[in-house]
Amino acid sequence: MAEIRQTERTTVRRLAKRGVYERELIHAILDQGFVCHVGFVVDGKPFVIPTIHVRVAERLYLHGSPASRMLNCLAQGIEACVTVTLIDGLVLARSAFHHSMNYRSAVIFGTATVVDDSGEKLRVLHSLTEHLIKGRWQDTRIPTPAELKGTMVVSLPIDEASAKVRTGPPLDDEEDYSLPFWAGVVPLAMTPSAPIHDPRLRPGIEPPSYAANYPGPGTASLEID
Amino acid sequence: MAEIRQTERTTVRRLAKRGVYERELIHAILDQGFVCHVGFVVDGKPFVIPTIHVRVAERLYLHGSPASRMLNCLAQGIEACVTVTLIDGLVLARSAFHHSMNYRSAVIFGTATVVDDSGEKLRVLHSLTEHLIKGRWQDTRIPTPAELKGTMVVSLPIDEASAKVRTGPPLDDEEDYSLPFWAGVVPLAMTPSAPIHDPRLRPGIEPPSYAANYPGPGTASLEID
Repeated sequence: MAEIRQTERTTVRRLAKRGVYERELIHAILDQGFVCHVGFVVDGKPFVIPTIHVRVAERLYLHGSPASRMLNCLAQGIEACVTVTLIDGLVLARSAFHHSMNYRSAVIFGTATVVDDSGEKLRVLHSLTEHLIKGRWQDTRIPTPAELKGTMVVSLPIDEASAKVRTGPPLDDEEDYSLPFWAGVVPLAMTPSAPIHDPRLRPGIEPPSYAANYPGPGTASLEID
Repeated sequence: MAEIRQTERTTVRRLAKRGVYERELIHAILDQGFVCHVGFVVDGKPFVIPTIHVRVAERLYLHGSPASRMLNCLAQGIEACVTVTLIDGLVLARSAFHHSMNYRSAVIFGTATVVDDSGEKLRVLHSLTEHLIKGRWQDTRIPTPAELKGTMVVSLPIDEASAKVRTGPPLDDEEDYSLPFWAGVVPLAMTPSAPIHDPRLRPGIEPPSYAANYPGPGTASLEID
């Protein structure tokens, strides 16, 4: 397996102890995220657009309409920066100054390649769906050739990448530990609630278990069952 | 009140019906977000960095270490793009193609101004804390002059901005409504769980109600109680 490259721009400058470069951690953050934020430059100015992503092996895939400005910019081979952030909790210290958040974020720098082959596009759409909600693909009408033509797919290598993580309790200045304030963490997570039926759902169809007991996003492969 | 400016770059190109420019909606998205993603350009290349933000009236405030690359870049007056995305649910259509997410996102373009005055810095740190967890400020040791000096604060006008929203059930092609698949929405929200005590908490201090019954981020003002 190729190494994750640590370069000047992926070197975490602030709080360097929070910067980690392990491949497995970066992959786990990407796999657990619902959306990424894609940064790109047009006429010297930055754009940051949220979109769905999926990691498959060492590549990150994005998709959308062939009219998407973001996808068309990336298709030109310009530099992109894709960031996924997971929020894990509020960190309440005794001092206002040491309040923080527990989080995990991954940042990928790179240039995209367009996926043109309709067979590969289909596998990417499968993996996007299965990443977000495993088991769903088999309960859908799969894309037609026209729909595949109407979907643009690009991929970036997960090569020049880094992660940044904060976990654990607050860290106060030693003299503040005697203050009479509560301190600790309020854990946070993206949590599902009961599925809402489509108003036009055919009678007698119940939500499948992957929706009724939704476990969150996960790892995907390009293999279609 | 100044109008929110709709410019070429804030005009939502894809799915224009999802683009909205109302000030109140943009404010509500910013107020409900835990983090924003800040895009900026260095040597022609994009960076996207997650950080805490707070809106106060018509400005968005960011803070961090005086050594932060992101803050120092913004302090030079370069263009920034700040995006806040709230995820509201997975939209499960009968066709793979029409799967989607319910979400609300706000995008702000602008250039930052450094907040130098220590009194204003203190008010911004107050509003950052109260935005994330209302009621907390009064239970903290407030920042010292040295801590204020060790905190960099910048603000951007919420002027050139837009929002994009998807709500409601899936929209399938008419001929797909007869398919035997469940369809609907799996609602998602950032949800707190029971507060975790700091291992060094003084005995007998219980979590305050703002942590035990944490309602999520909200609107902040610069007024300190």
